[in-house]
Amino acid sequence: MAEVKLFGVWDSPFSKRVELALKLKGVKYEYIEEDLKNKSPLLLNYNPVHKKVPVLLHNGKPISESLIILEYIDDTWQQGPPILPKDPYLRSKARFWAKFVDDKCIPAMWKACWQKGEEGEKAMEEANDALEFLENEIKGKRFFGGDDSIGLVDIAADVIACRNGIIAELMGVQFLRKDKFPNLCKWADEYCNCSFVKENQPPNQKLIHHYKALIQASTSSKSTK
Amino acid sequence: MAEVKLFGVWDSPFSKRVELALKLKGVKYEYIEEDLKNKSPLLLNYNPVHKKVPVLLHNGKPISESLIILEYIDDTWQQGPPILPKDPYLRSKARFWAKFVDDKCIPAMWKACWQKGEEGEKAMEEANDALEFLENEIKGKRFFGGDDSIGLVDIAADVIACRNGIIAELMGVQFLRKDKFPNLCKWADEYCNCSFVKENQPPNQKLIHHYKALIQASTSSKSTK
Repeated sequence: MAEVKLFGVWDSPFSKRVELALKLKGVKYEYIEEDLKNKSPLLLNYNPVHKKVPVLLHNGKPISESLIILEYIDDTWQQGPPILPKDPYLRSKARFWAKFVDDKCIPAMWKACWQKGEEGEKAMEEANDALEFLENEIKGKRFFGGDDSIGLVDIAADVIACRNGIIAELMGVQFLRKDKFPNLCKWADEYCNCSFVKENQPPNQKLIHHYKALIQASTSSKSTK
Repeated sequence: MAEVKLFGVWDSPFSKRVELALKLKGVKYEYIEEDLKNKSPLLLNYNPVHKKVPVLLHNGKPISESLIILEYIDDTWQQGPPILPKDPYLRSKARFWAKFVDDKCIPAMWKACWQKGEEGEKAMEEANDALEFLENEIKGKRFFGGDDSIGLVDIAADVIACRNGIIAELMGVQFLRKDKFPNLCKWADEYCNCSFVKENQPPNQKLIHHYKALIQASTSSKSTK
């Protein structure tokens, strides 16, 4: 039997993407939790370039970068629903929007959460502009790849859908507002309620505790500057 | 016959990637030169998200982002040599290094060319660190994908190979030094001497003239600040 290991971090949306894809395909794997403050020699050996999670190890061969791992999983395991469509044009569209989530949405949303003042406002504007494109893309569809099943873009955008509530509650920044992005909100509801998506989320209380510690650390570091 | 159009800019390394891939596959296409200071309504319509070249139009359907276009070309046209290997692990490696060129090498090299002082030195260090990874990756191989033919990573790194001389001459920044990166230099020589790679390069004199104008514009904008 193929040996599959995943080096991840429990709260990392990028690790979670890979877990979701493996679960979607029904691939059994061993999960190894990394400590990013004290990275294991194995992680540094398997991802010497970026030294980051997630790393998928399949029969001793390491693959890194979450979107690349998702393509690898789809290329390798034919079982279960496809992560990318078969049609070349639809494949290119899925790749485009997944890259868009990584390059435009997540960085702007991250900044909008953590930066204050003018920088924060600018980031919020950028996040809204980016989400507007996703809003148009999801319009009239159940999932980004169509009505049938969860695919590359849904998995890439998992964090946007499933951590919206917690971010709003703790950081005071509401990204997916029903009045502004009704289609994205509908998609997020549908997506987050899929049983295996739900099961893949980190425990809510642990996440709240973790975010609160991050906020506190950020506040104290600013007040001691 | 399939209708293939490419919206590009003559000196853009990203447009050149797509032209190279189409030529490699023997796909006939119509080339449409864009003016980035006055973008055409067609470009804005086909790439409303990034408003950038290259855009490939195939039977009326637009694809953007150069690496995604290269995958589309490989997925669509079976003729000619493959751009990505068939093996899933080798595919993931090709994707990894092509993304690395885009995310790490090109931005650092660009900064090292244009930024002065401490910022420039820092960028040069980053560029060297990134190139060191490529140096190890190409060691013992003719091309990044192996010995047989040019693939995704070679095409992604086209600008590193083929504009090294011109950048050194005009900007005074020598990236591919034989004492530092002997394997990369050997690869660059081999790659740039492939006849269809050579034919795909912009005319040297036009490029020199263009870079000189860019340098002059940059110098005058700094002196009037």
